[in-house]
Amino acid sequence: MWQLYQFPLCPFSRKVRLLMSEKGVGYELWRENPWEGRDEFLGRNPAGRVPMLHDPDKKLTLCDSRAICEYFEETSEKPQMIPGNASARAEVRRLVSLFDENFYEDVSGPLLLEKMKKRVILRQPPDSRALRQAMKLAHEHLYYVDYLLDRRPWLAGATMSLADIAAAAHVSVADYLGGIDWAGHDQSRSWYAVMKSRPSFRPLLAERQDGIQPPSHYGDVDG
Amino acid sequence: MWQLYQFPLCPFSRKVRLLMSEKGVGYELWRENPWEGRDEFLGRNPAGRVPMLHDPDKKLTLCDSRAICEYFEETSEKPQMIPGNASARAEVRRLVSLFDENFYEDVSGPLLLEKMKKRVILRQPPDSRALRQAMKLAHEHLYYVDYLLDRRPWLAGATMSLADIAAAAHVSVADYLGGIDWAGHDQSRSWYAVMKSRPSFRPLLAERQDGIQPPSHYGDVDG
Ligand SMILES: N[C@@H](CCC(=O)N[C@@H](CS)C(=O)NCC(=O)O)C(=O)O
Ligand SMILES: N[C@@H](CCC(=O)N[C@@H](CS)C(=O)NCC(=O)O)C(=O)O
Repeated sequence: MWQLYQFPLCPFSRKVRLLMSEKGVGYELWRENPWEGRDEFLGRNPAGRVPMLHDPDKKLTLCDSRAICEYFEETSEKPQMIPGNASARAEVRRLVSLFDENFYEDVSGPLLLEKMKKRVILRQPPDSRALRQAMKLAHEHLYYVDYLLDRRPWLAGATMSLADIAAAAHVSVADYLGGIDWAGHDQSRSWYAVMKSRPSFRPLLAERQDGIQPPSHYGDVDG
Repeated sequence: MWQLYQFPLCPFSRKVRLLMSEKGVGYELWRENPWEGRDEFLGRNPAGRVPMLHDPDKKLTLCDSRAICEYFEETSEKPQMIPGNASARAEVRRLVSLFDENFYEDVSGPLLLEKMKKRVILRQPPDSRALRQAMKLAHEHLYYVDYLLDRRPWLAGATMSLADIAAAAHVSVADYLGGIDWAGHDQSRSWYAVMKSRPSFRPLLAERQDGIQPPSHYGDVDG
């Protein structure tokens, strides 16, 4: 059985959990706070980041969420989450990177710093300017999601893909931390309601990060 | 013909150039300074980052260096640069991410900020503490490269792979900017000398970023 090392609000770990569930691959959750720099964790994963997957029977360790997702796309092919020809696959990966890098740097990363790390680890108050900026940039990213959804049923094209999973993973973390204002984003809101209602999403919505409560709409699967 | 939008010291663009050359895929260089935020560039690539590849005949645009490398691995299969079974491929991708994220955040990114962007764009002096820290962390990364090369002929295993290309791309930028001290890193130094002597590396070593000269050993292909 795969052991997934992660903490509840890590968006990259959420992406991997959603993908594994969609593909029906079982895993156990192991809690890892990467900022603690545990020796055994760093020994297996010099990058020092979660998610990390470890299979003690196969003696296999996988690090980096994109490497992990490609691994499952290659080893458990159905349902395909990077579908289509090479250019369609490049479009899925472009969008995964847009969320894992730009959305994370603009929105989910700053929210995690201000609302989780400063509270739980650094014992500092959040910087309200940084929070306002993250919420403002969240709007810009959601406008782009609205724009894509005006043209395509799913973010990368005709079917659900890893792009939707990556986006929903980051949006769910931002939403948990009160960083998403859905007003004016009807397309994004309906898309996210569909994502939230998938069985793969249920365990994420039920989980809590110690000491931080999400807003009441967070776990509501009817929108 | 592919048009590659990039600037000379972008390590992600260097990775793509090396991969395309190794695979014998032709391209033209188009100069793009992403910090200028050109409307036409942002229209094609909302992430606002280089490299971006554009083929006007195929009307195809590819963004994000990892998505681009996967595209060429799928469309021009020989020589394979993400070789082996799924777990060997995961190891290549783990290392690509280690260089594109950790090495970039610790070393090549700070050096680019202090020695290029501050000089050329921000017109500020470099922060010598940040430079010392980047050079210190470069040593730690090179110790890990030494460690890998004590166990394997190439970074990810028995053959040259995208891991070597990604690592050499970042190291070459750090070396150009005077951030690499090779003393005590014999394994890394020999590996990099082999990488530098490949025909794919020649055009990179000959190129100059406006107003910034590399140290004299930078272009020396004999070590
Ligand atoms: N490239 C990695 C990035 C993962 C990442 O940045 N994870 C964060 C948590 S959300 C982390 O572990 N940061 C290190 C820390 O907090 O010390 C991936 O895609 O898996
Ligand atoms: N995920 C991207 C990252 C590329 C990246 O960060 N490129 C830098 C230049 S080295 C960039 O364009 N930064 C935006 C800027 O400088 O304004 C990739 O792998 O292609």
